[in-house]
Amino acid sequence: MDDEQSTMTLKAIGIVRNEIKEQPKVGYPWKSVISEIVIDSSLTEALDGLEGFSHIIVLYWMHQAASGKLPLKVHPMGRKAGPVQGLFAVRTPNRPNRIGKATVRLLQRQGNILRVEGLDALDGSPVIDIKPYLPGYDSVADARVPQWITN
Amino acid sequence: MDDEQSTMTLKAIGIVRNEIKEQPKVGYPWKSVISEIVIDSSLTEALDGLEGFSHIIVLYWMHQAASGKLPLKVHPMGRKAGPVQGLFAVRTPNRPNRIGKATVRLLQRQGNILRVEGLDALDGSPVIDIKPYLPGYDSVADARVPQWITN
Repeated sequence: MDDEQSTMTLKAIGIVRNEIKEQPKVGYPWKSVISEIVIDSSLTEALDGLEGFSHIIVLYWMHQAASGKLPLKVHPMGRKAGPVQGLFAVRTPNRPNRIGKATVRLLQRQGNILRVEGLDALDGSPVIDIKPYLPGYDSVADARVPQWITN
Repeated sequence: MDDEQSTMTLKAIGIVRNEIKEQPKVGYPWKSVISEIVIDSSLTEALDGLEGFSHIIVLYWMHQAASGKLPLKVHPMGRKAGPVQGLFAVRTPNRPNRIGKATVRLLQRQGNILRVEGLDALDGSPVIDIKPYLPGYDSVADARVPQWITN
């Protein structure tokens, strides 16, 4: 890889504001959490048109994930009874690159602030990207999941 | 933000291999492109269990996107006739953080190599994360998009 590829550096485009200050237990009802995504005011114009979408994809940095050596296999959702899976087969925040991807309902856009429902990010999480949710591109009609997936 | 948050650095976990060496024109039939994602062999075990999913989410670095000053508004899909939209309302690769997100069919996993269908990444794109596609979490039944979206 050349230099451009080996040094990938992210700059936050904004920050998550909500009432979830610490990682809650597994099973927390994130779907009803309301958050504000405060985008850097220099980028306000780049949000124009987003209000036409009911849902958006948020990429954010899971800043409170574990650091240090990562276990390559984990118990999904922390359930010790179940079989371990590779970390890329689960959605654990403890990943080589701590990027979370959430699809959330856009309730309102006001200037540089997006009010969203269902974002499973902690207060203070840096936001990396916002993309419109395109059903024809982002969803799959016939997806199959293994039996240990319960949602 | 503290230091941890302001310096977000990504390390590639793998690389895309396919026959698409340069950005093709808008409308290219990416859905039928077959790619191999070669994951760093130190992470092979972290893929265990992924083969139980029919579809996976790939986060990758759009290494050939434009650099320099970004226009905050663009013509969607390069269609000069249509209205401009903010860059966060479209899926242009020319974004503050050049991360692409694709949902693709997993055809085969063999050791550290994932064979996938429909990945719209150029050959040589660094791979940042692999996540299982969870229909209940990643898809939305009632999503609304603006009229200028055609797919």
